[in-house]
Amino acid sequence: MSADFQPANPNYHQEVERILQAAPFARALGLQTVEVAPGYCETRLPVREDHQQQDGYVHAGVQCTLTDHTGGAAGATLIGEGQLVLTADFKISLLRPVLGKELNCRARVIKPGRSLIIVESDLFADQRWDRLLARASVTLAVVDKRLA
Amino acid sequence: MSADFQPANPNYHQEVERILQAAPFARALGLQTVEVAPGYCETRLPVREDHQQQDGYVHAGVQCTLTDHTGGAAGATLIGEGQLVLTADFKISLLRPVLGKELNCRARVIKPGRSLIIVESDLFADQRWDRLLARASVTLAVVDKRLA
Amino acid sequence: MSADFQPANPNYHQEVERILQAAPFARALGLQTVEVAPGYCETRLPVREDHQQQDGYVHAGVQCTLTDHTGGAAGATLIGEGQLVLTADFKISLLRPVLGKELNCRARVIKPGRSLIIVESDLFADQRWDRLLARASVTLAVVDKRLA
Amino acid sequence: MSADFQPANPNYHQEVERILQAAPFARALGLQTVEVAPGYCETRLPVREDHQQQDGYVHAGVQCTLTDHTGGAAGATLIGEGQLVLTADFKISLLRPVLGKELNCRARVIKPGRSLIIVESDLFADQRWDRLLARASVTLAVVDKRLA
Repeated sequence: MSADFQPANPNYHQEVERILQAAPFARALGLQTVEVAPGYCETRLPVREDHQQQDGYVHAGVQCTLTDHTGGAAGATLIGEGQLVLTADFKISLLRPVLGKELNCRARVIKPGRSLIIVESDLFADQRWDRLLARASVTLAVVDKRLA
Repeated sequence: MSADFQPANPNYHQEVERILQAAPFARALGLQTVEVAPGYCETRLPVREDHQQQDGYVHAGVQCTLTDHTGGAAGATLIGEGQLVLTADFKISLLRPVLGKELNCRARVIKPGRSLIIVESDLFADQRWDRLLARASVTLAVVDKRLA
Repeated sequence: MSADFQPANPNYHQEVERILQAAPFARALGLQTVEVAPGYCETRLPVREDHQQQDGYVHAGVQCTLTDHTGGAAGATLIGEGQLVLTADFKISLLRPVLGKELNCRARVIKPGRSLIIVESDLFADQRWDRLLARASVTLAVVDKRLA
Repeated sequence: MSADFQPANPNYHQEVERILQAAPFARALGLQTVEVAPGYCETRLPVREDHQQQDGYVHAGVQCTLTDHTGGAAGATLIGEGQLVLTADFKISLLRPVLGKELNCRARVIKPGRSLIIVESDLFADQRWDRLLARASVTLAVVDKRLA
């Protein structure tokens, strides 16, 4: 399920693990890693009651967080040592009201770059891969850690 | 600070309060209402450690949630009785890494409509209104509650 | 190359042909139809000198026009008789500076709907399908012709 | 009507003029400069029949081109000598079907930067400044001319 990309940093798993484990907001939300590969990341999120908006659906903010964070991890597989990614632009099309026991997110780099990385991040529920719930476009700025 | 709009429902405060009080995800995040007026909503969010991403900044997902939710409340001031709003499209430009004790969000309807409402939602920190941190465009679908 | 959609109007080709033939701006640009199927449209555009921006690349506005217009045609394959589509939201990621003799655009509905249709529209040059140049997300409002 | 920005290049007018005069697609469309200032650009476009889409409104592609191009010019007021801007991300909310004799576009930098500049670009018709027709967000990549 990996894209055909060459990581710039052979130890890219370190930075991606850091993103996936060390981010307090993603951890508080309950995000779990499923798979990481060059240019690719898949995560899952067990849905809790406190993820809902006022009508019982999963809040758009949860969908944004999951697709953005997974997208950032996918992008971080391709950056150099001593660099990090920051989301510069984020756009999501929320295609259907979201219900389910578990959200699934698959993010794929569609354009690597030295200063900008473009990722597409898709949202599903309960592993129903034929039923796209939301599609996000994440534009990541690649920044030197010393300058961030 | 209110825009020049006529609410379709004289009791619009009810639906807006429901959005601002009854949404579990916004409540868990800590979102607080500051002001509601036709076509306008302002909220604040005391920043907690569990709002951070992996580098100590406020997570993009928190910025998305706050601007989306406040935008939804601003839009809901203009819908009819028995209707609700669902975010269809959401786009945010994250202009600067976000730090601060408190986030402030001001959302303004820029185009009302029967089926689509367009809201612009701006993010600041610590009431520094001259320093825009993020700007979101929220496209809301207006839906009959019976059909949602 | 068609998606698995049922057109609401058996004569959908009429409305799509109208979009593809009767739009003066698309005609002046030189847009040509390649294929139409339910939920899908492919077009081509022979690149002219007057399509360039100031540095010799194809202008972003040309890329927007081609992806938007082809997206509108793809969406129009799924609307009912007496309806038309209007673009409500348009977002494009311009992945690479664009050069070439011919642009190719493939648009696919990713979510049909009664009032909103979401289309993804991809741009290539010289039929190099492995080299994505731009990806657009087109949110179409479905409107009754009498009301437009 | 100018924003409060310091141009990095005292001869910034040269690069902006180049954008506004030398771009074949903008010239073919009929775009005219009204005002340029640091972080700001205003243009006008006399509407022609060949700017229309299939229902007589101004084509979304024309709205995209005008807001993108004017946004690029606004951003170019702030770049250094030997640099140029390329649109990386473009998003537009098309608020109303557009009719009129003349389009008016006002673009304003909302966030300057060394590698990314964010511009907001507003569209009006016939100088009705109280009636916003479209609002675009333009993310510009700042690139060295030698690398472009």
